[in-house]
Amino acid sequence: MAQKPSIPKGTRDFNPQEVAKRNYIFNTIRTKFEIFGFQPIETPSFENSDTLMGKYGEEGDRLIFKILNSGDYLSKVNEDLYTSKDSNKMTSSLSEKALRYDLTVPFARYVVQHQNEIDFPFKRYQIQPVWRADRPQKGRFREFYQCDADVVGSNSLWQEVEFVQLYDAVFSALKLEGVTIKINNRKILSGIAEVIGAQDKLIDFTVALDKLDKIGEEKVKDEMRSKGISEEGITTLQPLFTLKGDFGNQIAELKTILKTSEEGKKGIEELEFINTGIATLGLKTATLQLDVTLARGLNYYTGAIFEVAAPEGVHMGSIGGGGRYDDLTGIFGLKDMSGVGVSFGLDRIALVLEDLGLFPETITNTVKVLFINFGEAEAIASMKAIKSLRDVGVSAELFPDNKKTIKQFNYANKRNIPFVILLGESEMASNTFTLKNMGTGDQQEVTLEELIDVLI
Amino acid sequence: MAQKPSIPKGTRDFNPQEVAKRNYIFNTIRTKFEIFGFQPIETPSFENSDTLMGKYGEEGDRLIFKILNSGDYLSKVNEDLYTSKDSNKMTSSLSEKALRYDLTVPFARYVVQHQNEIDFPFKRYQIQPVWRADRPQKGRFREFYQCDADVVGSNSLWQEVEFVQLYDAVFSALKLEGVTIKINNRKILSGIAEVIGAQDKLIDFTVALDKLDKIGEEKVKDEMRSKGISEEGITTLQPLFTLKGDFGNQIAELKTILKTSEEGKKGIEELEFINTGIATLGLKTATLQLDVTLARGLNYYTGAIFEVAAPEGVHMGSIGGGGRYDDLTGIFGLKDMSGVGVSFGLDRIALVLEDLGLFPETITNTVKVLFINFGEAEAIASMKAIKSLRDVGVSAELFPDNKKTIKQFNYANKRNIPFVILLGESEMASNTFTLKNMGTGDQQEVTLEELIDVLI
Repeated sequence: MAQKPSIPKGTRDFNPQEVAKRNYIFNTIRTKFEIFGFQPIETPSFENSDTLMGKYGEEGDRLIFKILNSGDYLSKVNEDLYTSKDSNKMTSSLSEKALRYDLTVPFARYVVQHQNEIDFPFKRYQIQPVWRADRPQKGRFREFYQCDADVVGSNSLWQEVEFVQLYDAVFSALKLEGVTIKINNRKILSGIAEVIGAQDKLIDFTVALDKLDKIGEEKVKDEMRSKGISEEGITTLQPLFTLKGDFGNQIAELKTILKTSEEGKKGIEELEFINTGIATLGLKTATLQLDVTLARGLNYYTGAIFEVAAPEGVHMGSIGGGGRYDDLTGIFGLKDMSGVGVSFGLDRIALVLEDLGLFPETITNTVKVLFINFGEAEAIASMKAIKSLRDVGVSAELFPDNKKTIKQFNYANKRNIPFVILLGESEMASNTFTLKNMGTGDQQEVTLEELIDVLI
Repeated sequence: MAQKPSIPKGTRDFNPQEVAKRNYIFNTIRTKFEIFGFQPIETPSFENSDTLMGKYGEEGDRLIFKILNSGDYLSKVNEDLYTSKDSNKMTSSLSEKALRYDLTVPFARYVVQHQNEIDFPFKRYQIQPVWRADRPQKGRFREFYQCDADVVGSNSLWQEVEFVQLYDAVFSALKLEGVTIKINNRKILSGIAEVIGAQDKLIDFTVALDKLDKIGEEKVKDEMRSKGISEEGITTLQPLFTLKGDFGNQIAELKTILKTSEEGKKGIEELEFINTGIATLGLKTATLQLDVTLARGLNYYTGAIFEVAAPEGVHMGSIGGGGRYDDLTGIFGLKDMSGVGVSFGLDRIALVLEDLGLFPETITNTVKVLFINFGEAEAIASMKAIKSLRDVGVSAELFPDNKKTIKQFNYANKRNIPFVILLGESEMASNTFTLKNMGTGDQQEVTLEELIDVLI
């Protein structure tokens, strides 16, 4: 093999520095999840195909990675089907398993499969990779991590309040201050569609409304007209286009628009409960903002809808999202199990922290001290000291070969090792160590006890 | 879907208690890896097929999970090949990617691909899942984690000394005392094959010798004879069958047997260096034992060979293994890059800890305190206290619904939540909390400050 090996497009290797940064984010999220009472589960990387297929729409089905059956897999393909050479139709005969596409469907499968062992309400979190055969592009990968927290088995709106607090707690802990937690409610959108006589056009209506920020009021109206929404209806929802101000002002406007819709009024009531809860409890660094144009995953969510935007000035799509779904487990035969959950976008959060220089400088997993190798006798003495350091939790290592000192120092420099020990003949004679601080260049002669005190 | 959903055979769901136990092992191993100066990398779950295929023998190739190409994948299959309907031959036309089979080959690929960014010697660890289409059985899964630490780019035997210490450090930290770290050397086995005139039968010879424990001396000799090893050769290696005693005694015997083999003598020299190093530095709870029958992965290892056996009395195969390999990266075109590494068998270690009751009782990721929900006003007061507790790092939650108190207590019991708070009308009036210890049943009335003191 003459050319250098490579990895599949859309996948990544992570070097030690990158792993350290990612673990910093994972650990921060995990700590907050647990403080909020969520417990971890893990599910297999691949599921039976029928668990995943048909759950993400036609496009989703296409983007699911399928695993080829083992053994003489072609022998099990029906002759006529084989002759057709139709990739779509043959897939289910060639593949029985598929890689996880998200963490939500496997979670629903888990809840239904283990319902008799679970104590509801079940607060679970899950931090695992997912795979999508998407076209790779900047910030979009074929393998990436999702970090999800969900509660199933309770209708209480306190959960929604908790998830807003959770977002605030995580981003505050990451020092990413000033994120906006946008909130909407599916019932508000349904109510608006109802009052403008477009119940049957809910998706068209919300897809158009969702573009308000990007294409502006006039084009949104044009799109609504093209989808068959009446001029009268568009006039009715005119106030939506200019909905501004704080929660209270927006809610007042919505109450006017939605006065004839029971569902819309229920949505307003839910929003008010959540807003009052958050106003009472306070947020550290985030802001909760009503955004009636927000419609992510509408087919899926039945109540609250969340999306988190990075602080103003950072050009990045949403860094988190979620919502309430009333029938997640229904697809696997377990009815009436309401759930609500949120997700954190690890890769985008990492990009934002990098851009804003928010990764703590102390994040590193390099070794703390390197012992220079001066030969066999010195190496044995070094290994003894290294053992004492490791016993008290200080990471330490011996340069394995007796190479030129300058080469060993270069190695320490490149690996950003903060301290180097010189343990040569004279130090051995006096039972001391020469400790060099690689940052300042300072050198001092110390005993083992002093060495431990400095490095611990 | 009427029947309960399921997961593919050979895969597992992990519930919160299982995740907690596995994380205890992972975290212990990770901490020791880092204290020994190893740094983490991560590689993609799937690799290009040509990176993996042909690296694990014919059997290995068969057990690698292949990923079906996306889109109209059949259209790219050559007509003649398609007509043949030969599963083996068609695989490479249907699949370009495959799931990681171990961490060693991806590590070799990583080193070669990133050789210009790496500072050698490169001490890396990697803890990630691998997948094998093996027949599932007790303790053997299709998805399982490997925990590997390797150093590449140094021939120093201090690395071998370090890995023995690392095994000792990890198993001591897990309180799994009394493991045996078996060591052998490929050069010893080659030397023996040489002196009995069976260089060309090295594999047959070592495969037979490896069975000594299981089938006994006579049957091993029979097998050697059947493989064409001479009676004279078998007489020469007679001392091997009764090799007993400490390192020194065994080495003395080996020196007699191997006196005419340069390679054998080199192997003895390496073993002596490692043994002297360990004798000088000491081990906490493990024992290093020479085992000349040890031959795992022989085609692969070129120097030291390691295998770790669980403490006596525990019926379990090896719980770790590794060795020195002189040409790992050669398969990807980078020559002369010697490496040595060890692996920890997570699933078997977990089984052993479970059997011996060695998981600390404190391993749990349940929430520390549950607030009983008595209604809206009480819930708001509870959420305020919960916020204060979370701010100081105490995991706390409110039961989300105002259900019967007995139901809420049952939930706390089932989830093993150690403390419950009753915050009702009278407590709100006196600005106190009734704190119930679920273990002892004790109840006390406390202020918020006292509550924090108890729970922090």
